[in-house]
Amino acid sequence: MEKTKKFLLQESELPTKWYNIVADMPNKPQPMLHPGTKQPLKPEDLYPIFAEELANQELNQTDTWIEIPEEVREKYKIYRPTPLVRAYNLEKALDTPAHIYFKNESVSPVGSHKLNSALAQAYYCKKQGITNITTETGAGQWGTALALAAKIFGLELAVYMVKISYEQKPYRRSLMQTWGAQVIASPSMSTKAGRKTITENPGYQGSLGTAISEAIELAMSTPNCRYTLGSVLNHVSLHQTVIGLEAEKQMEMTGEYPDIVIGCFGGGSNFSGISFPFMRHNIKEGKKTRFISAEPASCPKLTRGVFQYDFGDEAGYTPLIPMYTLGHNFAPAHIHAGGLRYHGAGSIVSQMMKDKMMEAVDIKQLDSFKAGVLFAQTEGIIPAPESAHAIAAAINEALKAKEEGVSKTILFNLSGHGLVDMSAYDQYLAGDLINYALSDEDISKNTDKLEKIV
Amino acid sequence: MEKTKKFLLQESELPTKWYNIVADMPNKPQPMLHPGTKQPLKPEDLYPIFAEELANQELNQTDTWIEIPEEVREKYKIYRPTPLVRAYNLEKALDTPAHIYFKNESVSPVGSHKLNSALAQAYYCKKQGITNITTETGAGQWGTALALAAKIFGLELAVYMVKISYEQKPYRRSLMQTWGAQVIASPSMSTKAGRKTITENPGYQGSLGTAISEAIELAMSTPNCRYTLGSVLNHVSLHQTVIGLEAEKQMEMTGEYPDIVIGCFGGGSNFSGISFPFMRHNIKEGKKTRFISAEPASCPKLTRGVFQYDFGDEAGYTPLIPMYTLGHNFAPAHIHAGGLRYHGAGSIVSQMMKDKMMEAVDIKQLDSFKAGVLFAQTEGIIPAPESAHAIAAAINEALKAKEEGVSKTILFNLSGHGLVDMSAYDQYLAGDLINYALSDEDISKNTDKLEKIV
Repeated sequence: MEKTKKFLLQESELPTKWYNIVADMPNKPQPMLHPGTKQPLKPEDLYPIFAEELANQELNQTDTWIEIPEEVREKYKIYRPTPLVRAYNLEKALDTPAHIYFKNESVSPVGSHKLNSALAQAYYCKKQGITNITTETGAGQWGTALALAAKIFGLELAVYMVKISYEQKPYRRSLMQTWGAQVIASPSMSTKAGRKTITENPGYQGSLGTAISEAIELAMSTPNCRYTLGSVLNHVSLHQTVIGLEAEKQMEMTGEYPDIVIGCFGGGSNFSGISFPFMRHNIKEGKKTRFISAEPASCPKLTRGVFQYDFGDEAGYTPLIPMYTLGHNFAPAHIHAGGLRYHGAGSIVSQMMKDKMMEAVDIKQLDSFKAGVLFAQTEGIIPAPESAHAIAAAINEALKAKEEGVSKTILFNLSGHGLVDMSAYDQYLAGDLINYALSDEDISKNTDKLEKIV
Repeated sequence: MEKTKKFLLQESELPTKWYNIVADMPNKPQPMLHPGTKQPLKPEDLYPIFAEELANQELNQTDTWIEIPEEVREKYKIYRPTPLVRAYNLEKALDTPAHIYFKNESVSPVGSHKLNSALAQAYYCKKQGITNITTETGAGQWGTALALAAKIFGLELAVYMVKISYEQKPYRRSLMQTWGAQVIASPSMSTKAGRKTITENPGYQGSLGTAISEAIELAMSTPNCRYTLGSVLNHVSLHQTVIGLEAEKQMEMTGEYPDIVIGCFGGGSNFSGISFPFMRHNIKEGKKTRFISAEPASCPKLTRGVFQYDFGDEAGYTPLIPMYTLGHNFAPAHIHAGGLRYHGAGSIVSQMMKDKMMEAVDIKQLDSFKAGVLFAQTEGIIPAPESAHAIAAAINEALKAKEEGVSKTILFNLSGHGLVDMSAYDQYLAGDLINYALSDEDISKNTDKLEKIV
């Protein structure tokens, strides 16, 4: 009998609601705090920064299900539902008894899962009559997604792109420009935050933290303009649950249920997206699925950071977020998985880590590329350097299953492809990449500076 | 009621046979001739160059349906069946009564339709015990596809890549290397044909014709090695019919039948793939669907070339093919649609042109990019510069329908995405690209040299 490789849903099976796991969590995340008053944040505090519906979603702790607007679902159809794929060829190469499945978010026209939230955010901004939006982008995946979403919903977009990515990834810049966005290398001279950074540190290659500061500053100083964020925040995780909700239906088609669910980890959006819908069965029905986030060893907030209130950006414009963090002044090494170079984790995931509802592993850069190349040569798809971290973690679990002689069902999220990141593979194949080792002092020098509020 | 955008087939609906249109053609193509004897080619003449089953397919004029080997179908499942998509957003932007559908071959992990034949060719080579294969690549799409196919079936691959593409498209080179292929810029010093070209014309940027000569020469001088080709030949068109066979089932799901079918045109493989299965209904049932090939104005073999016996390569190693051609010494302008820079059309398509079973239009470079950007901003997918020619032709037909106030059902093949061609879009957006105008003398100076055999 022929084996099914791809489990496909029809458009009519697209989820109609996002899943808001906060409503189901035994311990809710501690509140985000206003950076001035240090009082728990109210939605109104966020209205100057975000579209109101997004601000409301951000602090919604009571509604388990939130309707996906029909206009957003219509646009999801450009690429959704995405396939769930059985990685037979990878299994064979590993000679493992484990069954490995991946959710293929790389089929989106921007090449990653980021479009799931970009479309939602652009829609809510448009609905509110907002005309201009800003954002930052690290690896460029969020910026490209938002560029397409902004064009689709008729918004003007300015993107602050981390300088090293701007230089290393000219194709990402071109993508955003083709979809009609304005792209500025960060740090830039166009904002106070950018000028300060450049003055203090002229050779600085940029960081997500600085770029966020610049994008927020521009949004707050421009009429009818709002800021958008591609990860970390609760409403972004909410939108990404469309991944896991589809995967849930697709896993049913396979006749299996995942023992292990894995996502790579930058700010948490793709990990949350694949995990939360399955985690609700752990919470409500006592299922024992393990959830593993895979972060780079050079930016190990969940494995080696502290749980503390910290800012989401470098300049301290954002609310204080209760998070696992390396400190908002942490400057990560210039690894190629640019999307994973963020100092903190979102408040939901951080609470889950504290409550041991999930695990975290760190992956060295060379191991991530080794896994990426093996995946490319077996399953055909060249993964984004970020997603290669999830693949490396999945391979580790599959090899453990082989050692133990047990079959495991492993599901990971292929958050994106690497076709626009080939210079990274080039350097890897040429032997030009290294592993970055962080000492405890590298970490504590930033985390020790954090104000203790918890 | 919600509208269906993507028409999806399950893996179980993958075609089990390719369609060999030659068996159904009222006038068969004239025979290919042995370059030495000028006698009609026999399969055995091709055995030193191609795997035997491929040589047999090349000259098969009797079997209408040819079984797709199960091993190939298994690997097709990595990305097939591909979606058929209704381009609602493009229709809206054009304000046209036409219904525009596209077959989305860009979802293949190599980003184009080329994998359809690459997997088949690699499989037949492997089955025959061949260990090494060679090929050439222009835009890089065929080379990347064959690199993945060779890795999947365990073959060693050497790719001669047209020098200008090698330089303009470093990501394509990296892709091939990540999948394990060896890549050589052509003209190179590794072959007699390459050395001759370099000696006679030191600054030459390469052409598909030269690269083909080099790849054939290497294959014929290496033990247990065969050459493979990504377009032009009959067996390549045969494998690509999987596109149109799927599209046929999917058009049934829409409740419509195409009035017009469009493909961009380099050597003919994607045009043949989308067209032939529909054309059989013109042949057998008298349907009146129009078939339109869209070629670049700078390489107009079907619109302005001559019908003549000509070589497929520059050095004259290939059989003589009855084709519309600009002459095998035609050096096309350095347009970005590298995959369309080939001097001739395959023998089947050439016969169809002669018999008025199809039409050809030429598209100027700037018009192709304008269409590509509009498509990217409406349907989300950034098309390959090659595919943008098909989009431009589809847009022209949709606007004609609007002018005439009639509804038309238009189907085109989106042969690939442009994510690895962003430097081309960059130059277009910067205003650095031009249209190339060819005079009649530009064309006749090469075609006049052809030996008249017909």
